[in-house]
Amino acid sequence: MTAEQHPTDLSYNPHLPLSQALLLPRIAIESTMPVIEGGQFAAKAVAGQDVTVTSKVFADGHDKLAVHILWRALKDESWNSAVMTELGNNGWLGQFNVPEQGFYVFRIEAWIDQFASFRYELEKKFAAGVPISLELQEGRNQVQMAAERSEGELREQLTALHHELSGLLPAEQVALFLAPRSAGLMSQADHRPYLSISPQYPLDVERKLAEFASWYELFPRSITDDPKRHGTFNDVHSRLAVIQDMGFDVLYFPPIHPIGRSFRKGPNNSLTAGPDDPGSPYAIGSEEGGHEAIHPQLGSREDFRRLVAAAADHGLEIALDFAIQCSQDHPWLKQHPGWFSWRPDGTIKYAENPPKKYQDIVNVDFYAADAIPSLWLELRDVVVGWVNEGVKIFRVDNPHTKPLPFWQWLIADVRAQHPEVMFLAEAFTTPAMMARLGKVGYSQSYTYFTWRNTKTELATYFTELNESPLRECYRPNFFVNTPDINPAFLHESGRAGFLIRAALATMGSGLWGMYSGFELCESAPVPGKEEYLDSEKYEIRPRDFTAPGNIIAEIAQLNRIRRQNPALHTHLGLTIYNAWNDNILYFGKRTADGSNFILVAVSLDPHTPQEANFELPLWEMGLPDDAQTQGEDLMSGHRWTWYGKYQFMRIDPAYQPFGIWRISVA
Amino acid sequence: MTAEQHPTDLSYNPHLPLSQALLLPRIAIESTMPVIEGGQFAAKAVAGQDVTVTSKVFADGHDKLAVHILWRALKDESWNSAVMTELGNNGWLGQFNVPEQGFYVFRIEAWIDQFASFRYELEKKFAAGVPISLELQEGRNQVQMAAERSEGELREQLTALHHELSGLLPAEQVALFLAPRSAGLMSQADHRPYLSISPQYPLDVERKLAEFASWYELFPRSITDDPKRHGTFNDVHSRLAVIQDMGFDVLYFPPIHPIGRSFRKGPNNSLTAGPDDPGSPYAIGSEEGGHEAIHPQLGSREDFRRLVAAAADHGLEIALDFAIQCSQDHPWLKQHPGWFSWRPDGTIKYAENPPKKYQDIVNVDFYAADAIPSLWLELRDVVVGWVNEGVKIFRVDNPHTKPLPFWQWLIADVRAQHPEVMFLAEAFTTPAMMARLGKVGYSQSYTYFTWRNTKTELATYFTELNESPLRECYRPNFFVNTPDINPAFLHESGRAGFLIRAALATMGSGLWGMYSGFELCESAPVPGKEEYLDSEKYEIRPRDFTAPGNIIAEIAQLNRIRRQNPALHTHLGLTIYNAWNDNILYFGKRTADGSNFILVAVSLDPHTPQEANFELPLWEMGLPDDAQTQGEDLMSGHRWTWYGKYQFMRIDPAYQPFGIWRISVA
Repeated sequence: MTAEQHPTDLSYNPHLPLSQALLLPRIAIESTMPVIEGGQFAAKAVAGQDVTVTSKVFADGHDKLAVHILWRALKDESWNSAVMTELGNNGWLGQFNVPEQGFYVFRIEAWIDQFASFRYELEKKFAAGVPISLELQEGRNQVQMAAERSEGELREQLTALHHELSGLLPAEQVALFLAPRSAGLMSQADHRPYLSISPQYPLDVERKLAEFASWYELFPRSITDDPKRHGTFNDVHSRLAVIQDMGFDVLYFPPIHPIGRSFRKGPNNSLTAGPDDPGSPYAIGSEEGGHEAIHPQLGSREDFRRLVAAAADHGLEIALDFAIQCSQDHPWLKQHPGWFSWRPDGTIKYAENPPKKYQDIVNVDFYAADAIPSLWLELRDVVVGWVNEGVKIFRVDNPHTKPLPFWQWLIADVRAQHPEVMFLAEAFTTPAMMARLGKVGYSQSYTYFTWRNTKTELATYFTELNESPLRECYRPNFFVNTPDINPAFLHESGRAGFLIRAALATMGSGLWGMYSGFELCESAPVPGKEEYLDSEKYEIRPRDFTAPGNIIAEIAQLNRIRRQNPALHTHLGLTIYNAWNDNILYFGKRTADGSNFILVAVSLDPHTPQEANFELPLWEMGLPDDAQTQGEDLMSGHRWTWYGKYQFMRIDPAYQPFGIWRISVA
Repeated sequence: MTAEQHPTDLSYNPHLPLSQALLLPRIAIESTMPVIEGGQFAAKAVAGQDVTVTSKVFADGHDKLAVHILWRALKDESWNSAVMTELGNNGWLGQFNVPEQGFYVFRIEAWIDQFASFRYELEKKFAAGVPISLELQEGRNQVQMAAERSEGELREQLTALHHELSGLLPAEQVALFLAPRSAGLMSQADHRPYLSISPQYPLDVERKLAEFASWYELFPRSITDDPKRHGTFNDVHSRLAVIQDMGFDVLYFPPIHPIGRSFRKGPNNSLTAGPDDPGSPYAIGSEEGGHEAIHPQLGSREDFRRLVAAAADHGLEIALDFAIQCSQDHPWLKQHPGWFSWRPDGTIKYAENPPKKYQDIVNVDFYAADAIPSLWLELRDVVVGWVNEGVKIFRVDNPHTKPLPFWQWLIADVRAQHPEVMFLAEAFTTPAMMARLGKVGYSQSYTYFTWRNTKTELATYFTELNESPLRECYRPNFFVNTPDINPAFLHESGRAGFLIRAALATMGSGLWGMYSGFELCESAPVPGKEEYLDSEKYEIRPRDFTAPGNIIAEIAQLNRIRRQNPALHTHLGLTIYNAWNDNILYFGKRTADGSNFILVAVSLDPHTPQEANFELPLWEMGLPDDAQTQGEDLMSGHRWTWYGKYQFMRIDPAYQPFGIWRISVA
């Protein structure tokens, strides 16, 4: 089938008739933000947030403009309205709060504020001492006309104002014209000449956890002390308190479904599995069931429900993997052969990267004749089924290899009934596709963070994430490692390297994640690759979570600092500052109101102490270069006074390869 | 009246039904350039130009995409089409030529190229030596299906291809599948699965002079040797050859209409004029006529026509000022009092900036009840009247104080009949408004260039003009001075300063302009102001154009260099390069095909010699750092060989404060 996008009509008419030109807005409203692709997609926000809208609003000449921001929840009928403030150079800024999750829309309205223009001129002329009797008469005329177009009490008040003005001396009239009471009455009676209305733009307001959360990933089958005994959901209970104490919010499991037998992979991704090898959980489906089922060795559905409840008691939400792929034993192959692609010899088409074959996994064909709409509905029902079991967060495997319209529909459809549901895109692909997944509805995404190591790389990436278009559509979840990614930097960095990456992730974004083993500084790679040796994807890997050299205490403290400091609840509001050492990345995170300001310095050298002169960003606080400020080390609790803008730091990785300081006015 | 912009419907539907999702394009087409505000306005181009279109085009998975650019002149019905090439990271590039002035539209089409995907896989597998018999069968099936959906000769050719393939050995089949002939046939039969079509976007194609022109401004009344004798059109004939020899294309006159008597300004903008003071030509209109008339002291209509013709014989187009303002003696005040604003005492409203009054000039009210549509039509007729006299270029005075919809209509309306007409915006206002005037139809604009003096200021400004959004909508005309602007830099710079600014203007943009006197290094200011002492706006100023110390020869050579080097025919294609001296701005201009590459170094210090090490941009030419290149000094004609990337320059302002070199492969 062909999914065809119909070309829009040419909105620009080079032969503009006068009748149409007279209907064009005299006031231009441009460059409104946050807007994605002209409003084709919704910009992201979280419940409770003050959304800041900026725009360029201007007209010919020198008249004063009235510029308002209007907004409403999509489900509401009536608009809220607030005055926008002028920033200079035609910039205007408005703010409004979005208290609840769901969709909102906003737009801008502007008109020529004739009474404000009059008052501005009157004040100038009165101060300059020029004759103003005509101006006063014009002002009274404005009040009279406003009364005439009003009704009821307002009409009476404006009529009274007009009478009052008529009886006053010139200087008294000026004072009354400039009084807030007059502006208030005239504003109520404003007929809003030259009203210009922007298009309305959508906002997708999610719950706070969409922007601020710490993820912990584990394989439940590895929660065992014996590699021969398959861990279960019940075993996971023993880990909940520890994970909570480390400060995590989300506990994420790779697929928990029955695992196929055909072409099962053995240890280290070997092509043949022994009879006791557990297989990759990403080879989903066996005769015991598919995406809706639970792998029997993990426990029962009842066990799962109890684990979800116990996790909630520990402040943890369970996130599940949504991997739309099947082992060759998945029931769908027999029930719905039309959902798959078949070869001329009757065999199923599986993934290949010649000469490699991935026979343990086959993919569905979303646009196969037999797949529309049954496959789409079935996949939706799989998700909703898990939502009904209390799972509100899904980490989606390789979403960029499934059609964008599918995600746009599925996410919207699920969230229409369950607005609290969130989707994390496990996409490592081109920047345009990663951003687009955010546009079509993904709450957050995996990132390139894992491969950004140098100061320049990190500064550039952190900055890019704070800028348009990414800031409107893409929330980065900084995973420091995953079962698939054992970063090269950590292979030789030792413990200090793990602390470096943990500090960068926790301070760099509101969202970060860790795959278990990171806290134990595990880093043994498949030689020459960024993969884990003896990968947990293919075998059961018990761990000693109390092994010496672990960084559990530091992770707990980093997460504590995050919770206590609102500036760290988002990747936004980050600015790179000057530290004169290419091995030290130094940045600040600051809330919009400036009330919480965190400075972070991370040495990127895990081996040698590094020193740097650096600048305190006093200018951001409106302070002079010689101001005194209070500093507080958020790792140690130490406090001190900083004198002036230029400071010195020394970072010793043998002790702690970063510093996190809260700065405040002395 | 109220010009209301109706809000568009919310195109983003958060509750997307499945039936609608299935119609969404599987292939995303995003970030297409050049596009202004989603296609609301036309991007700028010039006739004969190769327009380059870039876009991000991508879909899920790994299939090969076919991406085409389609375009047509708006007046044509059929589309032209060309293949776009892949740039990496989902980027695609297409090019097409726009031979004629007028409006064009373009759009992008993309679909999944199944045969290309097949060939890519087949080639990989064949090289890897894996079994391919199934692949060959699938390929033959594709050919067979293509034949079945084709007709006539194509069907026969594809059927023959299928038969031919069926009789070949595997390796021979691979070779035939990969042959261009097979791709060509299959491409003709492509059913374009998953076709995605972008919106169509407009282009405004103007004649070459819109992008590349040198303007010379003079007051015809000053072409006299006696300040008591008013110069005439007939006097201007004597200047044409000189102006042509200096290399100018456009000869621009301030308003040539009758000048009001009431409140006429005297010398140096004084409030009272003597009986022989000529007045400001911007106080338009007297009992002798208004905007359609010619000031009697300049000559007759016949004189004007002869001057237009004589100028054309010298390769010069006459540009007129279009200043929509009236002296209090303008006939419109009596004929159309409803076009103006009146005070309660029956007097007319004039411009003020308290305590200053500008009584010599009154402005029309475009939205007055009596002004719609008669004022708009009258102003259009004024312009068309001069177009009919052979004037195709208008410099518009203060367009930002007149309504944007008026310009959008007027420019479109005039150009619908006379596509060769161009408008230059004399706007010195906010960046947003200046860009918007370009969007609504202005061909080019005055700029901030006059106030950009330091290396950082100039580098930033030149770069900004080369970037979106300005590059799509705004063509800068670098005037080095105007009757209103006597730049502070020139007050003390001496002759070298005039050469510096001339070099920056002529090399920085395809459009530059000069107000007469600049070539004589005139710079006497009103003390403390950027205004000319004894401004020509209020008096007749004869000049000795052969005065010693003039820079006429240098201007002529700069304009000659511009004509001979296509890279200098536009402000685009400019890159700032490294010269290690903050007093030396060093940049390159390069045509898109790289065939013309000009390097410009300008010392910004008019007093002291400056030296710098600098880099030849060998990397832009695909050359290694130790390559040899040919250099040519375009002012002196000297030629030499440059060895390697690092070079040295010394610039002595006493001789020539800049260098202009053409670099080419040795």
